[in-house]
Amino acid sequence: MTAESGGKRRVLRAIVVGLALALWFSPVPEGIVPAAWRLFALFLSAIVSVVIGAFPILTASVLALAAAVLTGVLAPAKAYSGFANGTILLIVVAFLVARAVVKCGLGERLGQAVVSLFGRSTLGLGYSVFLVDGVIAPAFPSNTARSGVLYPLVLSVAEAAGAGPGEGQHPRLGRFLMFSGIASLTVSSALWFTAMAANPLGAEIARGHGLNIGFGTWLAASSVPTLAAMALLPLLLYKVISPEVRTTPEAPRAARRALEAMGPLRAQEKIVAATFVGMVVLWGAAATLHIDSTAIAFLGLGVLLTTGVLTLGDIAKEGDVLATFIWFAVLFTLSAELNALGFMGYLGERLAGALGGASPLVAGLILVVAYVLLHYLFVSQTAHLLALFGVFLDVGSKLGVRLAPLAFLLLFATNFFSANTPQGSSANLLFAGSGYLSQGDLYRLGALTTAFNLGVYLVVGAPWLLLLSR
Amino acid sequence: MTAESGGKRRVLRAIVVGLALALWFSPVPEGIVPAAWRLFALFLSAIVSVVIGAFPILTASVLALAAAVLTGVLAPAKAYSGFANGTILLIVVAFLVARAVVKCGLGERLGQAVVSLFGRSTLGLGYSVFLVDGVIAPAFPSNTARSGVLYPLVLSVAEAAGAGPGEGQHPRLGRFLMFSGIASLTVSSALWFTAMAANPLGAEIARGHGLNIGFGTWLAASSVPTLAAMALLPLLLYKVISPEVRTTPEAPRAARRALEAMGPLRAQEKIVAATFVGMVVLWGAAATLHIDSTAIAFLGLGVLLTTGVLTLGDIAKEGDVLATFIWFAVLFTLSAELNALGFMGYLGERLAGALGGASPLVAGLILVVAYVLLHYLFVSQTAHLLALFGVFLDVGSKLGVRLAPLAFLLLFATNFFSANTPQGSSANLLFAGSGYLSQGDLYRLGALTTAFNLGVYLVVGAPWLLLLSR
Repeated sequence: MTAESGGKRRVLRAIVVGLALALWFSPVPEGIVPAAWRLFALFLSAIVSVVIGAFPILTASVLALAAAVLTGVLAPAKAYSGFANGTILLIVVAFLVARAVVKCGLGERLGQAVVSLFGRSTLGLGYSVFLVDGVIAPAFPSNTARSGVLYPLVLSVAEAAGAGPGEGQHPRLGRFLMFSGIASLTVSSALWFTAMAANPLGAEIARGHGLNIGFGTWLAASSVPTLAAMALLPLLLYKVISPEVRTTPEAPRAARRALEAMGPLRAQEKIVAATFVGMVVLWGAAATLHIDSTAIAFLGLGVLLTTGVLTLGDIAKEGDVLATFIWFAVLFTLSAELNALGFMGYLGERLAGALGGASPLVAGLILVVAYVLLHYLFVSQTAHLLALFGVFLDVGSKLGVRLAPLAFLLLFATNFFSANTPQGSSANLLFAGSGYLSQGDLYRLGALTTAFNLGVYLVVGAPWLLLLSR
Repeated sequence: MTAESGGKRRVLRAIVVGLALALWFSPVPEGIVPAAWRLFALFLSAIVSVVIGAFPILTASVLALAAAVLTGVLAPAKAYSGFANGTILLIVVAFLVARAVVKCGLGERLGQAVVSLFGRSTLGLGYSVFLVDGVIAPAFPSNTARSGVLYPLVLSVAEAAGAGPGEGQHPRLGRFLMFSGIASLTVSSALWFTAMAANPLGAEIARGHGLNIGFGTWLAASSVPTLAAMALLPLLLYKVISPEVRTTPEAPRAARRALEAMGPLRAQEKIVAATFVGMVVLWGAAATLHIDSTAIAFLGLGVLLTTGVLTLGDIAKEGDVLATFIWFAVLFTLSAELNALGFMGYLGERLAGALGGASPLVAGLILVVAYVLLHYLFVSQTAHLLALFGVFLDVGSKLGVRLAPLAFLLLFATNFFSANTPQGSSANLLFAGSGYLSQGDLYRLGALTTAFNLGVYLVVGAPWLLLLSR
């Protein structure tokens, strides 16, 4: 780190600490209890510190938790309750389980198979990226983990098609394929309940507002607008980027060669495939059969460990999952307790007052658009969801907006606003760092993709959701 | 893996599954509820599978948890409650915090400083191993993590003294130093509440029996017998192993050279030292000031992350801690629920019946000795504690044994029985794998050390504990 960036970080940290102290010691607004106000001071400072880059999210969460407990704002048992939350444990276990798809090679095989079938043209390659991503997505609760499967595939396809970032290397072809990776993740994550870590978290928050969202209800709600976006997005990017090469007859051959080199399905791949199919079937049936989704994930993990597809050595490399577990659990708990202490309701009333007079339809529209634009301030989709989703639901509820459609639109937005900026999701980072896309490309194509998705989910999705929730 | 070991493992797994099914479908003994019996079938099978090597502890735990929830034996909220247990979270966070001591070099510096002061003779070197270990122990809740600091020190001291495992390399000198590492960990872990992961867990279980054990009460109870064992153990090993070399004038010089090469205390080492001193002071005062020990650990982690001593990259390597978190939380919960369902009490009554008629003193003696001998069957100190500690307390209670002394003796035994066998604790593995100690040495010296410790804790410890609990 340079002295300059160290100095800048010190200033940013001073700002955050100053903000926390200023809020903490400012008079408690009428209508809320002091504990709610102090917890808000800690929570907001933690979120702001992440947004402005003063602290990483783990550091900010751990410090906020310690401060909340040591100052007596939260009782220890409440403060740690997030760690035992079934939804959060589901994410943690599914992170570990997803590791097996990458490790056994099944993810790459699936990708090559799709390219061998649909990859004859540049546009077909673009669609194949979306198709592979969409098919594997329900087994990957981490869009970041999924980007780790998708990126090597996109890179090898780009290289096989002769695209490179330099002069005379068909840079627009490479740009099209690479940005298709980022754009695809926005919609594959929105399609499936289990395709992004924040989805089940959001469902958990929505449960607190009386909505019951599971694997099946999510898919029913997301299917129509998301499939529409998936069908149109590759074409839009193709028109806008206009790749130099439009036919790629060599791509299916390269994929077939790669598949031949892989040989027949190995035993480990069969085990992983069977385990995942079993898990997805059980997840789909969980609500009907009254079985616990988290226990299904634990069972899947147990099967993969028993069969030796995953080893203790594999788990030992997953310290990132522990870090995610900790900050997830902490921020989730702080947000939930803020809600339990009445703060979200208070904030909602204030915001509702500002939007007062708007019709429910206009209010809902403003809420969704504002929610998407605010993501320019966030580096984590989950942090954004944790900070704002509950409040926006509250406001919508107060203004008479139909809650189920609003909740789904905000939840889908939590997925598709990832393309706003290169840092809008860690799932973008591999593609953004590939060298095929400039910062200008990333912001321009990101804004375009987000605006297009917003349009599709409002124009196609909103009527569909209103129909479903009748 | 060879085909033979794969075949053997399949047989072992078939045995465990057979055991689980046999217990599950056998008639429920009179006096307990069916859920308790089925949970016992799952818990016992998980423990047996670890003891006989059919499944690693993580796999066994995850499968038992999934089975318990999916069969309806445990409700999801209860089954996952261990993950939010403050004591377990304390261990998880302290594992991460301990990483900083190794990383910044403070652990090695402390070790070299002790050798430079006390390392003039072979016996002095042995004592210095015990001293270093005993001093750093309260900051290391993982005796395994601590062995990772101690082992490089012991190895470099052995090499500096000219000891090697081969002919003409003073093999007995090396054997003495290496086994001192294993022996030292048995007592350093018993000395401090926070020196071994199972200690706070045991205190948590003892709390369920009405005993309140914290940092200060533990130290008061452990100090007299443990310091006696620490004072005598190096001498015993020295007499029994009889090293070829008895004076090592070069060791203090080598240590001083190493210290000079390190230069003055670096900024990171100062931060870590200050953080640890702060944490140990706060832990010591936690009960008096009514502050939460786990929040203190989170604060320490936050400080180390903020100052950059620990980075997100360091945390990313700690997947092992996540695995430990999962199996700890699961086995702890299963054991606690078994207790809550009345099973431990039932088992205690049966065992008490078998020991009926014995005087409280004789009964207490038999319980402690049996508890130690049973560790020959266990590969994990924590699993042993989780399986038997609560039951033995129950039995002792029914037979009129004074509970506080019995609890402390069993808790100290949970630490010192680690030397029984090389696999009796993962903290032994570095020393056992050093090449300086044969399997014969390990079992022979292990039995000697355990028998000696058992004697000291019974002869010196029991009267001291009876005095304290008057």
